[in-house]
Amino acid sequence: MNKKIDFNYSCPLPIEQYPNVLLAHGSGGKLMHQLIGKMFINSFDNPMLNQQHDGAVFDVNGTKLAFTTDSYVVQPIFFPGGNIGNLAVNGTVNDLAMCGAKPLYLSAGVILEEGLPMERLWEIVQTMKNSAEETGVQFVTGDTKVVDKGKGDSIFINTAGIGIIEHDVDISPSQIQPGDAVIVSGDIGRHGIAIMAEREGLSFESTIESDCADVSKVVMKMLDKQINVRCLRDLTRGGLASALVEIATSSGCNIAIKEQEIPVNPVVQGACEILGFDPMYVANEGRFVAFVSSDDANKTLETMKSFSVSKNAKVIGKVSEIRDKMVTLQSSIGATRIVEMFSGEQLPRIC
Amino acid sequence: MNKKIDFNYSCPLPIEQYPNVLLAHGSGGKLMHQLIGKMFINSFDNPMLNQQHDGAVFDVNGTKLAFTTDSYVVQPIFFPGGNIGNLAVNGTVNDLAMCGAKPLYLSAGVILEEGLPMERLWEIVQTMKNSAEETGVQFVTGDTKVVDKGKGDSIFINTAGIGIIEHDVDISPSQIQPGDAVIVSGDIGRHGIAIMAEREGLSFESTIESDCADVSKVVMKMLDKQINVRCLRDLTRGGLASALVEIATSSGCNIAIKEQEIPVNPVVQGACEILGFDPMYVANEGRFVAFVSSDDANKTLETMKSFSVSKNAKVIGKVSEIRDKMVTLQSSIGATRIVEMFSGEQLPRIC
Repeated sequence: MNKKIDFNYSCPLPIEQYPNVLLAHGSGGKLMHQLIGKMFINSFDNPMLNQQHDGAVFDVNGTKLAFTTDSYVVQPIFFPGGNIGNLAVNGTVNDLAMCGAKPLYLSAGVILEEGLPMERLWEIVQTMKNSAEETGVQFVTGDTKVVDKGKGDSIFINTAGIGIIEHDVDISPSQIQPGDAVIVSGDIGRHGIAIMAEREGLSFESTIESDCADVSKVVMKMLDKQINVRCLRDLTRGGLASALVEIATSSGCNIAIKEQEIPVNPVVQGACEILGFDPMYVANEGRFVAFVSSDDANKTLETMKSFSVSKNAKVIGKVSEIRDKMVTLQSSIGATRIVEMFSGEQLPRIC
Repeated sequence: MNKKIDFNYSCPLPIEQYPNVLLAHGSGGKLMHQLIGKMFINSFDNPMLNQQHDGAVFDVNGTKLAFTTDSYVVQPIFFPGGNIGNLAVNGTVNDLAMCGAKPLYLSAGVILEEGLPMERLWEIVQTMKNSAEETGVQFVTGDTKVVDKGKGDSIFINTAGIGIIEHDVDISPSQIQPGDAVIVSGDIGRHGIAIMAEREGLSFESTIESDCADVSKVVMKMLDKQINVRCLRDLTRGGLASALVEIATSSGCNIAIKEQEIPVNPVVQGACEILGFDPMYVANEGRFVAFVSSDDANKTLETMKSFSVSKNAKVIGKVSEIRDKMVTLQSSIGATRIVEMFSGEQLPRIC
């Protein structure tokens, strides 16, 4: 690669306004979407990437595969309900599931900071091993790097995953139709609040555990039961609100949800009030939203409720006839407001 | 994941001796191999991982695929001959090629440090784009994270790759036979010295450029020509010496090489003498070693020399009849010594 690269085209981001990367560029809001869109997707421009799905779906010799990646930089690395190890397995497995793929193989790319106690690393690796076994995926390839003390933060883990798609359902925002039911797989905001409480040394009436979990078995069962699944999205950075706004934007549809139907654990609700967060924007790591045909709403709820990870699933709204790419929230007192993607940062380094 | 994890089994690494992660655990030598073996491979234990190949090879519905990952933490991120962007493309593409796979798709997991100038990032992303286009691979999925200033180092990039294996040649150390020719694809040590010179502000008679390059087209051509390829390994951290020691260990064979046959650029040789390095242990990013049947040695050389990236290919030795897992080097004055994997660190954060 001794060729000179031609940089006639210049960076399309608003460099005068944001000359440097900010924490907010990684927090799931407007700045992150701008960075990803203009920096990466426009540069690598191809149909698979342009879908902005949780993973890429492609055909190899007649077999449909899904491929996804996530780097995990959560801080602290241990938290109630898990550590960076099960986060790194479940997060990537869930991204494959959101493509309707059965997770098969994972890679692990580990960046260690000099000085990390070996026993902490051992504990994380054992957690990865156990989570992978529970899910039925295998770590088949990996890489280890070490950076100088002060040039990393204990440990960062990247996992990429490959899954197989064994059905013909096209799961994507483009499949969403007016009248579709919007179903959330459980109570929201637990992961974000668990991390925040651990980070800030806060304690509440009862310990809030992260919801970090594998949801792939729920999705596989929904597909087995031939539920008419239109679109799936796991709720991570940016929470339920950002996921819905993303889907409304890419599908072109309006999504109308009801605040009183959204399941939130009362301790999480209380913590959000104290901390000034809206649970709609708080991160999750074992929750997803499903868009299904209204006829299949009950069958979906029943299927979800048969798994402990999604036992609190609820229909929270529906897709409306109007097509102006908006998410509207009807509050408990009846007022309706537009849900927007937040700008700036809510909770950095949550995953 | 609220299940308690059972840690009855304790960390099998020598924790009394090395309680914490050292830079040397990432530098390609003995400590790194111990960490990877005892920490990761023993934990995730499965036949694909246990091969300790550059990537995993598996069959999905009758199609043979290769899957690999690498995180890039090179410092400095810009160096003569490239930057972390082409390193991240070529490194992973080459790992796929070493499995005999044609590279198809890449993922990108980017960890940015708060404060990184947007224009530097733009330049890196354009380099990734150009390298991917030259190679014919597509970035189809990605992830962006941002960490606080002082908790990262400008940028770390993970790429995972998927390739397709369209032939029946089993490329692995187990295929190596006595008499096989050992061929290196070009002069060694340029990447490591280019990084070192940049890092330390050293200058030599002429600028040493990294050898960072895609070698996949060379490998594809070798396979097209039905060369009897036994084993391939790209020379990265740990250099030629470590690659040969790894292969001798896993194949069980002895490898005898001749010092005077190993191509080293005189400027690199001079720099190594000044810096106290042995080029055999210095990192490369566009070089590989091929084990082929002796009958095919000339055909291999001819094929390699038809590509500019491997125009300086040379036969450097052969596999001997003895099977005691050793690499021997015959020096230019005729003495023979055993080549070992270095312990401790040679050049940290070279890739």
